[in-house]
Amino acid sequence: MNTKSVSYNQDTIVAIATPSGSGAISVVRLSGIASLSICMNHFKPVNNKLTINNIQSHRLYLGYFINNENIIDEVLVSYFKNPTSYTSEDVIEISCHGSEYIQQKIIEILINAGARTAEPGEFTLRAFLNGRMDLSQAEGVADLIASQSASSHSIAMNQMRGGISDKISDLRKKLIDFASLIELELDFSEEDVEFANRDQFNKLIFELKEELSQLIGSFSMGNVIKKGIPVAIIGKPNVGKSTLLNAILNEEKAIVSHIPGTTRDTIEDTFIIDGYKFRFIDTAGLRESDDVIEKIGIERTYDKIKQATIILYVCDISSITNQTVESVLEEFKQYLQDGSKHFIFVANKIDELAELPSHIKEILELDTVFVSAKRKENIHLLADSLINIVKKFNITNDVIVSNSRHYQALVNANNAIKQVEIGFNNDVPTDLIAIDIRQALHELGTITGQISTDEVLGNIFGKFCIGK
Amino acid sequence: MNTKSVSYNQDTIVAIATPSGSGAISVVRLSGIASLSICMNHFKPVNNKLTINNIQSHRLYLGYFINNENIIDEVLVSYFKNPTSYTSEDVIEISCHGSEYIQQKIIEILINAGARTAEPGEFTLRAFLNGRMDLSQAEGVADLIASQSASSHSIAMNQMRGGISDKISDLRKKLIDFASLIELELDFSEEDVEFANRDQFNKLIFELKEELSQLIGSFSMGNVIKKGIPVAIIGKPNVGKSTLLNAILNEEKAIVSHIPGTTRDTIEDTFIIDGYKFRFIDTAGLRESDDVIEKIGIERTYDKIKQATIILYVCDISSITNQTVESVLEEFKQYLQDGSKHFIFVANKIDELAELPSHIKEILELDTVFVSAKRKENIHLLADSLINIVKKFNITNDVIVSNSRHYQALVNANNAIKQVEIGFNNDVPTDLIAIDIRQALHELGTITGQISTDEVLGNIFGKFCIGK
Repeated sequence: MNTKSVSYNQDTIVAIATPSGSGAISVVRLSGIASLSICMNHFKPVNNKLTINNIQSHRLYLGYFINNENIIDEVLVSYFKNPTSYTSEDVIEISCHGSEYIQQKIIEILINAGARTAEPGEFTLRAFLNGRMDLSQAEGVADLIASQSASSHSIAMNQMRGGISDKISDLRKKLIDFASLIELELDFSEEDVEFANRDQFNKLIFELKEELSQLIGSFSMGNVIKKGIPVAIIGKPNVGKSTLLNAILNEEKAIVSHIPGTTRDTIEDTFIIDGYKFRFIDTAGLRESDDVIEKIGIERTYDKIKQATIILYVCDISSITNQTVESVLEEFKQYLQDGSKHFIFVANKIDELAELPSHIKEILELDTVFVSAKRKENIHLLADSLINIVKKFNITNDVIVSNSRHYQALVNANNAIKQVEIGFNNDVPTDLIAIDIRQALHELGTITGQISTDEVLGNIFGKFCIGK
Repeated sequence: MNTKSVSYNQDTIVAIATPSGSGAISVVRLSGIASLSICMNHFKPVNNKLTINNIQSHRLYLGYFINNENIIDEVLVSYFKNPTSYTSEDVIEISCHGSEYIQQKIIEILINAGARTAEPGEFTLRAFLNGRMDLSQAEGVADLIASQSASSHSIAMNQMRGGISDKISDLRKKLIDFASLIELELDFSEEDVEFANRDQFNKLIFELKEELSQLIGSFSMGNVIKKGIPVAIIGKPNVGKSTLLNAILNEEKAIVSHIPGTTRDTIEDTFIIDGYKFRFIDTAGLRESDDVIEKIGIERTYDKIKQATIILYVCDISSITNQTVESVLEEFKQYLQDGSKHFIFVANKIDELAELPSHIKEILELDTVFVSAKRKENIHLLADSLINIVKKFNITNDVIVSNSRHYQALVNANNAIKQVEIGFNNDVPTDLIAIDIRQALHELGTITGQISTDEVLGNIFGKFCIGK
């Protein structure tokens, strides 16, 4: 589908752009060819010399929103002349009092005057269709609105500003270079130029695979940053896991938000520490009367551990033995060896000891924090350890993929490139290799929306809020 | 307290002006002497020639809201130069993406830059203190935001636009005329001019009392329009009262809103029909096994009836007798005679009859509607009857007092005028009469805020939402 050929701006859409409910002010937004005329039929400006012919873009006009001489509200109207607007169409914003009655009334009057209610995300869809932003940027807008932490905000902002787009455009350029080289080889296949090209081919394939892998690899981090970095809190019963969770919650001054739906009784709690969202998974109650670590074997606890990026192993320092420590090391040997999980040993209940058994730290060779969850002592050290781990992820440096649609397209593109490499190394005919290159180009094109279908667009924009 | 002498605009206030939560866009508002400089320190406009020196009032500027080179959001900034702003101070509005994280972050940065969080209603308080609106107009702003129906919206809009203020100013002018006449009489007391003045006095007192009474009288209607016109649904058990309530709810296409907090189980439901809010009070369950109307005597049901402006008496038409009708007439004789309540006789269950016993209507000499609540038949006729009653209230003609503070001040002013009249008719010395005139002037002054105390202002603006 070539969506750009659809004349989307033949009709004029309207929606409340501000959050729903009542407040000091609300903004009603119109976009489309009739925005200005529809608005001006119901706007009585204070400056009575203002008309549809002399209204200027990017200015604010005070006046009354009226319907048949009835004053609905005192409003500020702003006009964004195409193409210098969010949608690249004529846009009107009406800033009214935040009464739900007034908002509804204004919408109703504008609909009677010829506008229609916007679908969720339709303003941004129009921005995309009119070429003001590509698809990954549009998705960045939705992510930006949904962002709840500094890190997810930063990824979304980068995406909205074209971070992914630039990267994808760079990869596409390389793929097109590749295609040209293949054609070049074809042209000169009778001559002795193959060797030089082969070097360039290998270099290009290496670069493409490298960059795709990097982007694909960034997804697991991008995804957890968006959803919260999963931290499993495990340990024997009564070592203070839940008290620790409460202590983290109460102690951390940087905690700014609880995420709706993750209440305590779902045994997951999301906290933001230093701009990073952590999703704490409390495994309390899963092990009940089972008192040896080696028998954690309960399937669900293993699942929690598998999901986690960081594991907090909590133990009661007052009753710890060398056996306990060894059994911990043994239990998590696999993760400690392959480095796929980050591990913090939390020695709790230091309030019950006269002095700290610092040798434990040496035995463990692990990141160890001594705390008293009950007295909320040293919880900030635990927070520091969590932040230190996250900082190792090095998420600020480069483009991070946080969208599963992009991830899937990148995996598909990578697979196509691998096919190109195989074909290339096995002297598969150039025209067949070209099919795989086209496939890779296609996959990358779906990310930025150069290739898109109604279904894909429907999925993406249907998840937006109304008015965006 | 002369509040106008307080230098309120020495500090700069900031708040989110749009409803709380997440949406397409949100607006952060600054007001005060440093608004522009605080904002411009964190605004990187797309047009890099824009500076604090050449920014123009009532224009929109696209750019980035930044903090130490970190981009927080792409925003639109508008500047309202004093005194052409809502508060009459320098006002900045920052239109950002409606992410809760971004809203909080922008507020945080602006506070660090020297703004402080606005108290509820502080923008409007400043508008009042800076003389941009009087107190009754400011209260109209809050009422406008809270308005949920066309009729309450219309009262609030009239108040915000100075409807009450004009009326009060008119009354004050008459009072001052009165005072002048009294002084005139004093000057000429030795001469023979008394009679002419006495006529003028009487005329003025009559006018003042008339206008004050009219305003005071409008309050009961203004108040019910704001809170919903109370309609008690009464009748024997099982005549279909609750079914009728459901039928009204389902049938009426004009019903646009349920009011939060008035859920079904509080036996009150608020519906809006044709722009009027009705507060239906279902008395079901109050009478239980009591099966004769004459014994309604339960205190609570009487209370409900006393509260009601309109009474819907529901009966089962299939079992109605002349005795029933007579007992209804007897029961409500008082209200029917003094006209203090409006009464609709709802003959329900017409589906159970072959033909309508229209003689009932003649017997009752009451507004009678034949309905089938079960089959939702003729419910629109009941709605019509309700609307016809409300239209008789004649609420569109003049200024309506809907604020209990104004009501109390008007009652006090009226009492003072009555004292003036008494004093005047009993030849009380002029200087004593002048005290009562001053009292009346004082009371009227509190309505528009010419006289106000910190406590009064605190009460009024404390009820506003943040950001207004």
